[in-house]
Amino acid sequence: MKQKRYNVAVVGATGAVGTEMLRVLAEHRFPVKGIRLLASARSAGKRIPFNGSTHTVEALSGRSFTGIDVALFSAGAGRSLEFAPEAVRRGALVVDNSSAFRMHEEVPLVVPEVNPHALRRHEGIIANPNCSTILLLLPLAPLHRAAGIKRIVVSTYQSVSGAGAKAMYQLWKETKDAMGRLGPLARWPVGPFPSNRLTGSTGKTGQPVLPAQIAFNVIPQVDAFLENRSTKEEMKMIHETRKILEAPDLPVSATCVRVPVFVAHSEAVWVETERPLSVADARRILRTSPGVRVVDKPAAGGYPLPLDAAGQDDVLVGRIRKDESVRNGLVLWVSGDNLRKGAATNAVQIAELLFGGEVAKWRGGKVRKASW
Amino acid sequence: MKQKRYNVAVVGATGAVGTEMLRVLAEHRFPVKGIRLLASARSAGKRIPFNGSTHTVEALSGRSFTGIDVALFSAGAGRSLEFAPEAVRRGALVVDNSSAFRMHEEVPLVVPEVNPHALRRHEGIIANPNCSTILLLLPLAPLHRAAGIKRIVVSTYQSVSGAGAKAMYQLWKETKDAMGRLGPLARWPVGPFPSNRLTGSTGKTGQPVLPAQIAFNVIPQVDAFLENRSTKEEMKMIHETRKILEAPDLPVSATCVRVPVFVAHSEAVWVETERPLSVADARRILRTSPGVRVVDKPAAGGYPLPLDAAGQDDVLVGRIRKDESVRNGLVLWVSGDNLRKGAATNAVQIAELLFGGEVAKWRGGKVRKASW
Repeated sequence: MKQKRYNVAVVGATGAVGTEMLRVLAEHRFPVKGIRLLASARSAGKRIPFNGSTHTVEALSGRSFTGIDVALFSAGAGRSLEFAPEAVRRGALVVDNSSAFRMHEEVPLVVPEVNPHALRRHEGIIANPNCSTILLLLPLAPLHRAAGIKRIVVSTYQSVSGAGAKAMYQLWKETKDAMGRLGPLARWPVGPFPSNRLTGSTGKTGQPVLPAQIAFNVIPQVDAFLENRSTKEEMKMIHETRKILEAPDLPVSATCVRVPVFVAHSEAVWVETERPLSVADARRILRTSPGVRVVDKPAAGGYPLPLDAAGQDDVLVGRIRKDESVRNGLVLWVSGDNLRKGAATNAVQIAELLFGGEVAKWRGGKVRKASW
Repeated sequence: MKQKRYNVAVVGATGAVGTEMLRVLAEHRFPVKGIRLLASARSAGKRIPFNGSTHTVEALSGRSFTGIDVALFSAGAGRSLEFAPEAVRRGALVVDNSSAFRMHEEVPLVVPEVNPHALRRHEGIIANPNCSTILLLLPLAPLHRAAGIKRIVVSTYQSVSGAGAKAMYQLWKETKDAMGRLGPLARWPVGPFPSNRLTGSTGKTGQPVLPAQIAFNVIPQVDAFLENRSTKEEMKMIHETRKILEAPDLPVSATCVRVPVFVAHSEAVWVETERPLSVADARRILRTSPGVRVVDKPAAGGYPLPLDAAGQDDVLVGRIRKDESVRNGLVLWVSGDNLRKGAATNAVQIAELLFGGEVAKWRGGKVRKASW
């Protein structure tokens, strides 16, 4: 039987996530008939390889979606708000990696391993959760099913690629400048020791996109600050976790921090459960959870590192131990590739589910009253 | 009135903390009569400047302490165990930065701003707490006095200098190698994007002292693992916090992580208090707490960064906000210089207190039955 093939558009094809989406589509052998690479007018004309041939990037417009079956959006919330509804009107199914529609009541917010059932009802747009939320829920959802999570505390160690390709460039450029200033350090380990500070050079990096120097530094700000003195990223983790776990009042607290890593986010996680859950049981549950790989032989160096998580679809979980400071508490350490499972892989998996017959077909269905 | 001056020995004078101790002694105008720089035989003969003249490093032995009034130890627990009691027998007062004596019942474990009264009884050795513990307690002790802390959860972002000068060299060398491999990246921000991984080059860094590559990576291991699957560093934070706050059963949970920063540790902190404490009250208390500087205008980029904390004695505290996930919860973000307030400054401050007349004089006093 010949497999049905689909016309795919990637919106934001030259970005950090877009680049990874092309890689994941190819690796997963997604049944692509034609591919359309869309980006800002500035990037139009660039040529990008995909599946053995080279494709030209086109400037994004409403007309870009004619004949498209599935559009993977990763070009920021503004672009999604403007073009995703148009893509749907032209018959495409949209998987949107931005925050634009995530909390919209009629938009499913899906991690395929966690809540695939949410795909049953949609109006043409499916939202891909925030990367930090996806990486958190891969291990927490099965623990929630087993013992009922009643509180989550999480601090993140987020790579610069989460802020896009320009932030990766910022880290590279600042590091290069700092190393130039540090000199050969032949006199180490007898001082003088290097400072973290890259005096006066931040201005040289073109347009730094992160709010401070990231080379040899960490920044307790991911995304913008809100009225309540938390960042958007922190509130996304709270609200999206509640929506995906269908636990609207679940207590969650997050501190989100940028670290000088190119790819892969890590998270220190504390959970309290309704019912007792031993470390051994938690580890056994996680070992059989899809999308999760347990790396937990700490004394032998066996724990998740962003270095090892980068380039992988699985989320690595380790340092699983009892939290002795509270009743029914567990502590975990998680590392996962924010561009892959945190974004591109999750989006492609959603498209696979939608076109794989596991849920009602979208093409040929009827768009209900779309409210965007 | 002529100020009394003292003969000072710095043990581990060529290390990351030792170097900083010399700087702090000079900056604080500690009344130094003579200085004796002690280190391993390997470093003996090196010449190091202090207060305008150059001093020769001597090999550490028991005889090194004859005529010494105060010995600042920062050469690892093994050296402290071997030589601190001998220094005391020869009449020196020891301020020990290692973990050797911290939990010893007869040894005060002191943060001068928090528990100076603990200095009243000692037997010649005063222990300097772990750097992460000092930085945590500077802001938490005044909140504890105000509202009674009943649980602490903390995750750390620790700089490589906490593992000594060789770890600083490891970060520098690995970064240099990685940048060489990454090349000019002229094609950015269109991929290929750099990997975090420094393939096969870790072996070139001489002797890496950290358990994994630290350049463009984070490592959820600081110090060795114990039976209970926590690290020594994590257990130090728990036990030392309890001893200093005189709260032997205080629930504390910590995850300690190394990040690619040269100097200054940061910490994401959650506290629950017995009595309600508003964010405004917490901020007001911290503003008048010694050793603490509140940096908390987040929307304007006002939050603690290791970059800003490095080289300072004050611990920076910001991102002070309500933890909505629990009753009476607060969240904080802390950055402090682990070599200065986390080690050298705290040790010198202890010596200043001891010789400043605020506590009973040691010289001329009697050593009670020393049990080491």
